[in-house]
Amino acid sequence: MLHDPNKVYIFDTTLRDGEQVPGCQLSTAQKIEIARSLEILGVDVIEAGFPVSSPGDFNSVVELSKAVTNPVICALTRANKNDIDVAAQALKYAKRPRIHTGIGASDMHIKHKFNSTREEILERAIAAVKYAKQYVEDVEFYAEDAGRADIEYLAKMIESVIAAGATVVNIPDTNGYCLPDQYGSKIRFLKENVKNIDQAIISCHCHNDLGLATANSIAGLQNGARQVECTINGIGERAGNTSMEEVVMILKTHKNLGLHTHINTMGFYEISHQVRNQMNMPVQPNKAIVGANAFAHSSGIHQDGFLKNRENYEIIKPEDVGFPDATIVLTARSGRHALKHHLERLGHNLDKDNLALVYEQFLLLADSKTGINDNDLNLLVTTHLVKA
Amino acid sequence: MLHDPNKVYIFDTTLRDGEQVPGCQLSTAQKIEIARSLEILGVDVIEAGFPVSSPGDFNSVVELSKAVTNPVICALTRANKNDIDVAAQALKYAKRPRIHTGIGASDMHIKHKFNSTREEILERAIAAVKYAKQYVEDVEFYAEDAGRADIEYLAKMIESVIAAGATVVNIPDTNGYCLPDQYGSKIRFLKENVKNIDQAIISCHCHNDLGLATANSIAGLQNGARQVECTINGIGERAGNTSMEEVVMILKTHKNLGLHTHINTMGFYEISHQVRNQMNMPVQPNKAIVGANAFAHSSGIHQDGFLKNRENYEIIKPEDVGFPDATIVLTARSGRHALKHHLERLGHNLDKDNLALVYEQFLLLADSKTGINDNDLNLLVTTHLVKA
Repeated sequence: MLHDPNKVYIFDTTLRDGEQVPGCQLSTAQKIEIARSLEILGVDVIEAGFPVSSPGDFNSVVELSKAVTNPVICALTRANKNDIDVAAQALKYAKRPRIHTGIGASDMHIKHKFNSTREEILERAIAAVKYAKQYVEDVEFYAEDAGRADIEYLAKMIESVIAAGATVVNIPDTNGYCLPDQYGSKIRFLKENVKNIDQAIISCHCHNDLGLATANSIAGLQNGARQVECTINGIGERAGNTSMEEVVMILKTHKNLGLHTHINTMGFYEISHQVRNQMNMPVQPNKAIVGANAFAHSSGIHQDGFLKNRENYEIIKPEDVGFPDATIVLTARSGRHALKHHLERLGHNLDKDNLALVYEQFLLLADSKTGINDNDLNLLVTTHLVKA
Repeated sequence: MLHDPNKVYIFDTTLRDGEQVPGCQLSTAQKIEIARSLEILGVDVIEAGFPVSSPGDFNSVVELSKAVTNPVICALTRANKNDIDVAAQALKYAKRPRIHTGIGASDMHIKHKFNSTREEILERAIAAVKYAKQYVEDVEFYAEDAGRADIEYLAKMIESVIAAGATVVNIPDTNGYCLPDQYGSKIRFLKENVKNIDQAIISCHCHNDLGLATANSIAGLQNGARQVECTINGIGERAGNTSMEEVVMILKTHKNLGLHTHINTMGFYEISHQVRNQMNMPVQPNKAIVGANAFAHSSGIHQDGFLKNRENYEIIKPEDVGFPDATIVLTARSGRHALKHHLERLGHNLDKDNLALVYEQFLLLADSKTGINDNDLNLLVTTHLVKA
């Protein structure tokens, strides 16, 4: 298969890694709705569930396979025949099915979780990929806890599973432990030392336990990965997964990276709200790209610059991500220039002295009240200028 | 002054850059309460306000100066005499006062915001530091929009302000635009090319517009910075500032960086809740370190590993940051092992067959209900095992 070397594949796991969060469970009907939005958004892969884990998850993979056309539908398994049999069965209606199988790669996981040895785990990894390959052409392999795995062993495992037929190799930082330079080095090592690495796409799957999921994914891409596993709003277990909207907008903003996605970024605002509403998973106002305040400028120094030239403070136009409006909210920290702008918007064109007078009253009001709205401004002008 | 070369100074700006967010305004009494908690937490510097901006801010700096003893109290100004006069006046009761002055360093800011030239801006920067120095020994200089500034000009500006007496030089990524390797390179360039750089502490002030504030701050520290400007919960304008809890826990977890802070990390949970409650600024459940789900494991694969060995999935112990409990919540994705653990906790020691039976019923229930609690588990056991 020919790949555009600069295209980054967006693998959405909102409905699998995201949906397993306490309180986030969705009905199949809700999942179908979100999957259709993800298709419109332009994601390349939708991870639809972990079929062996429960009848509900099995059914979701069946129904999502029927509901969408363009994205690859991916089902998660562990490295055993039963998981893979069940996944293959769940994927039978998928136009483009993918089985996502894998096993722990760190000594910690090998020893404490599997009570096994490196050699045995390697054999199980190879066997799982070969077994999955009997069902589908597109097999992704995850090396769980790769972030803490011995790098030579990890390279050997990756080489072996690619030889066994893996089309995508996922290098998860399962615990969100890596620093960006460490995660990037790991990907570069695989890119440089796994001799068949060009026969597969390297995928980043980063967790946000230290707040570094986005940075780690970008470091992975800078060092040769070409798929990012992510969720809308960065939801997911514990501190969540990589935020799709952050990664995509970084690639769009930093054109010198030379990478691109097929995501229609104008859809981010709407799908972000769809996911938060359906999953009861609030997004904090200061969340990058999709938080309520993401484009709200409030300090005097900033508002002044913003009004003089939007590019002084805006690197992304809110409309690029479907945001209704770039809002300036007046507070006690707002400058004279911001006040003037809003007064003019409301039809009050004041001279310098009157502006100074209203500004003084505005500051007193702003100190006693949270957020000054249009009504407050109208009242300020009529009260104080009539008196003046 | 002698500095421990491996100590990272924590500069908290929750009460200045954080507090200017729409809806987050606090009364002076509330600010005092938070400042006292910050002192107990062990922060090195509290930015208490922007005194010239409003009478309320002026008063807060006065009162915070009286209320705390150990942290440096810092007041923000622009690069003009009036701002600095007012700040010095507000700081008169501070045991350890700092004036934080500065000006735009990027051509975008110089041209569009100040309608000026590089030479003139440089003169204003030097003059502001010298003027502030007449009032206080400790003067921090910020080079606004340093993230987009010409690096040679930035180096010249930094050298000049250090020569003028600046003790700390703040290199803000005002727009949250930089990638970690770019921000790190900028700090390294200054460290290597500004000949008097060892006479000052380099400070990182990163914004989170692309979700990279924490990663950029860490990159800054890896390249020679020794102060991080941050807020509790990462609050701040737009997508917010660097999260203090993330940076501190990264340094604590990654001991090989060789850096440390004086923060008592056990206080993070409590102060996070204090700030979210006082400021009406919700924290999303998947926020790193302090979100409600930050330590909640839910998937079957993970729970199984977690129960076998906590270190499989936990890099930070929740109690290290004052979290009440590491919660495992049962969902349809929970495995048999997790179910068994919780049943045993509730006093139900089942044999293999009975466990299999209850697990089957558990999965059916979990598919129809969001989150399975102790009552549900008790009911499952009594209903199905009595029948069996």
